[in-house]
Amino acid sequence: MNKIKKTIGIDMDGVLADIEEQFMDWYENEHGIRVPREERLGVMEPEGFPDKGAVKRYVYTPGFFRTIPVMEGAVAAVKQLMEDYEVYIVSAATEFPQCLSEKLEWLAEHFPFISWTNIIFCGDKSIIDTDYLIDDHCKNLDFCKGKAIMFNASHNVNQHHHVRVNSWTEVLALLEKESLVGA
Amino acid sequence: MNKIKKTIGIDMDGVLADIEEQFMDWYENEHGIRVPREERLGVMEPEGFPDKGAVKRYVYTPGFFRTIPVMEGAVAAVKQLMEDYEVYIVSAATEFPQCLSEKLEWLAEHFPFISWTNIIFCGDKSIIDTDYLIDDHCKNLDFCKGKAIMFNASHNVNQHHHVRVNSWTEVLALLEKESLVGA
Repeated sequence: MNKIKKTIGIDMDGVLADIEEQFMDWYENEHGIRVPREERLGVMEPEGFPDKGAVKRYVYTPGFFRTIPVMEGAVAAVKQLMEDYEVYIVSAATEFPQCLSEKLEWLAEHFPFISWTNIIFCGDKSIIDTDYLIDDHCKNLDFCKGKAIMFNASHNVNQHHHVRVNSWTEVLALLEKESLVGA
Repeated sequence: MNKIKKTIGIDMDGVLADIEEQFMDWYENEHGIRVPREERLGVMEPEGFPDKGAVKRYVYTPGFFRTIPVMEGAVAAVKQLMEDYEVYIVSAATEFPQCLSEKLEWLAEHFPFISWTNIIFCGDKSIIDTDYLIDDHCKNLDFCKGKAIMFNASHNVNQHHHVRVNSWTEVLALLEKESLVGA
């Protein structure tokens, strides 16, 4: 590990993995209704669908985490970031025991270039110390030790106290700017 | 979570879980020979047994991590520490995908009072920031951000650059002294 590189912690669900798309797909599959992002703005995931128990059921269903679609642009962007940063995947995963092996398999499929040494499955993220943390949840960003970067998601659109990025293209642009400032 | 409490990261294998005992038991079961701790002093685990491939085979065998005996005194000591500290379990577990669910089940059986929010499965521990880290490996202790506490193990007896504890009784005594110094 190159100790000179700055470190970035990257969340999985809502950042690398498009969990909103997966929720919409699974909900449509079960209920025959597609609830678009626009109808769930500012609403936490479980409350965003008419059947309020659906989200909780899905996250405990085997296969749910294994089959989440990759967030657009994530693979190429992470590859690029790894040239200049030490990248860690930091997922709050211990709440859902069945998801641990699924998340490892998912990473092995879509991000095979990430070493096991750089994968962290945790609960709260308050003891994770990276220079940057890219995440979609304030419960993680509010307590992180480095610079918080909020990845846009329907549920977080009304939270404005962190720098927001709307896509992986914007992540790269922001960090490019940061490195120029820090140079 | 009480943010005023100091934080302690506690390793699993060799600290909470008596993995040396498990290696000796499994080796004896397979080869009919018990290789005592005294014969493995200062030697890394895989090299400590005549069959050099045994340890690596065991750690990839389903059931190995699920059935490790608890380190003497660990349950009572961790309970006591949780009164004064925010305790995190920090295990370098992502190297062995099959062990993740086994380690969660093991913790649920022996340490059911530890919340999922305080369990971390990681690779390298260099981005874990706790005030203390109790571990048996220099590869973790050398890079930790807080105070390193080395838990005695056969393989680490010749490494003298960290404070050493020989038992959970000594962990409690050391932290008791620390809290008096820090008071």
